[in-house]
Amino acid sequence: MSFNNDTIVALATASGAGAVAIIRLSGETAITIANASFKSVKNNKSLLKQKTHTIHLGHIVDGDRIVDEVLVSVFKNPNSYTGENVVEISCHGSVYIQQEIIQLFLRNGCRMADAGEFTLRAFLNGKLDLSQAEAVADLIASDNEASHQIAMQQMRGGFSSEIAKLREELLNFASLLELELDFAEEDVEFADRTQFKELINRITFVLKRLIDSFAVGNVIKNGIPVAIVGEPNVGKSTLLNALLNEERAIVSDIAGTTRDTIEDELVIEGIGFRFIDTAGIRETKDVVESIGIKKTFEKMEQAQVVILLFSAEEFQTESQRLILEIEKIKNRFPLKPLVIIANKIDTLNASETEELKSKIDNIHLLSAKSGIGVEALKEKLIGFVNTGALRNNETIVTNTRHYDSLLKAFEEINKVKAGLESGLSGDLMAIDVRQALYHFGEITGAITNDDLLGNIFANFCIGK
Amino acid sequence: MSFNNDTIVALATASGAGAVAIIRLSGETAITIANASFKSVKNNKSLLKQKTHTIHLGHIVDGDRIVDEVLVSVFKNPNSYTGENVVEISCHGSVYIQQEIIQLFLRNGCRMADAGEFTLRAFLNGKLDLSQAEAVADLIASDNEASHQIAMQQMRGGFSSEIAKLREELLNFASLLELELDFAEEDVEFADRTQFKELINRITFVLKRLIDSFAVGNVIKNGIPVAIVGEPNVGKSTLLNALLNEERAIVSDIAGTTRDTIEDELVIEGIGFRFIDTAGIRETKDVVESIGIKKTFEKMEQAQVVILLFSAEEFQTESQRLILEIEKIKNRFPLKPLVIIANKIDTLNASETEELKSKIDNIHLLSAKSGIGVEALKEKLIGFVNTGALRNNETIVTNTRHYDSLLKAFEEINKVKAGLESGLSGDLMAIDVRQALYHFGEITGAITNDDLLGNIFANFCIGK
Repeated sequence: MSFNNDTIVALATASGAGAVAIIRLSGETAITIANASFKSVKNNKSLLKQKTHTIHLGHIVDGDRIVDEVLVSVFKNPNSYTGENVVEISCHGSVYIQQEIIQLFLRNGCRMADAGEFTLRAFLNGKLDLSQAEAVADLIASDNEASHQIAMQQMRGGFSSEIAKLREELLNFASLLELELDFAEEDVEFADRTQFKELINRITFVLKRLIDSFAVGNVIKNGIPVAIVGEPNVGKSTLLNALLNEERAIVSDIAGTTRDTIEDELVIEGIGFRFIDTAGIRETKDVVESIGIKKTFEKMEQAQVVILLFSAEEFQTESQRLILEIEKIKNRFPLKPLVIIANKIDTLNASETEELKSKIDNIHLLSAKSGIGVEALKEKLIGFVNTGALRNNETIVTNTRHYDSLLKAFEEINKVKAGLESGLSGDLMAIDVRQALYHFGEITGAITNDDLLGNIFANFCIGK
Repeated sequence: MSFNNDTIVALATASGAGAVAIIRLSGETAITIANASFKSVKNNKSLLKQKTHTIHLGHIVDGDRIVDEVLVSVFKNPNSYTGENVVEISCHGSVYIQQEIIQLFLRNGCRMADAGEFTLRAFLNGKLDLSQAEAVADLIASDNEASHQIAMQQMRGGFSSEIAKLREELLNFASLLELELDFAEEDVEFADRTQFKELINRITFVLKRLIDSFAVGNVIKNGIPVAIVGEPNVGKSTLLNALLNEERAIVSDIAGTTRDTIEDELVIEGIGFRFIDTAGIRETKDVVESIGIKKTFEKMEQAQVVILLFSAEEFQTESQRLILEIEKIKNRFPLKPLVIIANKIDTLNASETEELKSKIDNIHLLSAKSGIGVEALKEKLIGFVNTGALRNNETIVTNTRHYDSLLKAFEEINKVKAGLESGLSGDLMAIDVRQALYHFGEITGAITNDDLLGNIFANFCIGK
């Protein structure tokens, strides 16, 4: 990763052919370079003389040859995404034209942008702090409402502004503590210990909340793993289809958008669920099958929610075995949220249904085929997620790097707290405070280094 | 296809995730609808009060919820692509965000755009004629320099303006001829027959050139089929790789662009070549193999150029058989351009090479491995294409619809010519002239109907 400020170019839109593609230039000479290959349709106007945030119709030309008719958007330093001069070329979206225009600019003094380099420059020019920059990548990767909302909140600075504010207060105390060092002989306390204690308590409270939020943040970002335990004939795929049904309809309404296989992923009220298929755990002496059971248990271990799917008919004929199976799972995973489903409930009559309900506690009655109990199941699943923080628009940490820094800061702050309680001298406490400040700075990017930046932005896509 | 003017919305950039995506709205209420979901970052400005061709930073909001931070470009009727009010939203390129924003606008009074509907509107509003509109789709589909250049020329009106001009002159004569009808009793000639003849000659000349250009146009648009006849071990894939080598390097320089398998497609000096792999035609009595030979001959029939690929060693050991094979092919396809290649020429010494040259006329010496003769082969291939028209920047017809109309117009003009020569009366000639005018009008879209438009624009992508 090079941190120089030559002018960079990249395709900003998705790769492949579309109606329109955007090629983005950023750097001091961006407007000059674009202008050298631009011929306006009317009165030969120069891009150099245009106001920021204006759009100009014309041709991109390579000598006498017209490469494309384009719209050119001009953004002037510092009023752009990167804070530098930025030009966006909106061209016809053929891969050939995209390549021709990019190559033209490469020949004329641009360099191909590295992954994430536009956002890196935005960070280096103070347009975003580091956690905001990271949120940009999260935002582009987000594929459901909850992860999108968290990324958006982080990008708007909700999280880092809180940290930055606490960091500033703490920095203030650090200076006072260090000042005491200069007057060590005189035993003065410039830093008011009561106020300092109060600040440390506030910081502890915020850090604790942010650290705790990571569990739910992680779940929201990556989806909640749900293990479905059930024999092949109990209606697993019918159930998944029933759950997926509504979402599918929405997706296919929008032409021109594609989506990866969603067979085992489902978004309910904005929260992603990943369904992990497992075999049943029927008791057996067969070695091969017992390996299968071992794997089923492993998958249940990894899952946050376990669905035990049986057919209602099974309960009629083999209720004793099923009850034992359920007990076994409950004993093995006493804290794991569990949904026991009797599928194909429409095959039972009223009295059979009542009998079933009396035999199994909290049995969830369902017919994937007719849709009975599907909505109730969705509600049950969403009930397992602690969406309180999400609903209350609280800051949620989803980034492992931030989580690590928060944990380290928390550790240092606890040392400071202990120091305060044991009446440790200011100069010694100042060391721990400096460490805490360092970890705060890591989050916002106030403290940084090339390796860290390289790591973060290498995960971005080109053009962002 | 609906020709009403409600406000339409679609994703304009390639589908899938990218750094940036563009969502485009067009219609009378486009700015109003966009403004209702837009909150500017600064001073609460309204999009309704902004100048055309300006860009505004802000948020797309759905009630209280921020969907994304975006740049909104405003284009005001008639200064836009469609000639209507147009808004382009440049949002973060996640599929989720694209969907959310499009759905928001659909709820707020937009309708999903049909394929090509933006360009259809541009045509209906007189921003483009029909052949220019068709060139937009060709431009997006173009994947090499030649097809791109032709589409660009057509989009800029080179082709249709020529037709439109001739049509106008012809229309003028048609009126005069029809005027004669009103004075039929008096036997006057309002239309000067000498001038008319001159015009008809000019039209014939232009039509003939355009019709002839279709052959090369078609080849350029679809690539030139080249059959490679050769046994598996003579170095076919090494040769293809050697030919592809340079082009590949260029492509892989640009990160973020992907390309389909190009194993058997190659662009030389902007012209596409499609290589068709075939087996050899070794004489045999085996039924299965003779079927193979039949297929090889069929493929050679379809190809515009045939390459016979042998290894130089083969010529050493089996020269008699090879010479017979070559003769057989020459006899069967006497007019087909043929390149006879001796590959692996680096395995022969100087005197062996001389002997080979004396035995086979026009043998092309090549070593795919070391690169000897590869450049010369490229030149030979490009030499088979009549690139004169292309080099001279002449108008080339690539569209089958235009070709059909040109042929029909040519037929009618020939009737007019015959009529002129035989001194046919003006009123009878006027009928043929009207027919010719009709076919001219089909090309530019001066004459059109809903079915025709539906057919043309249904082949566009959504968002264009």
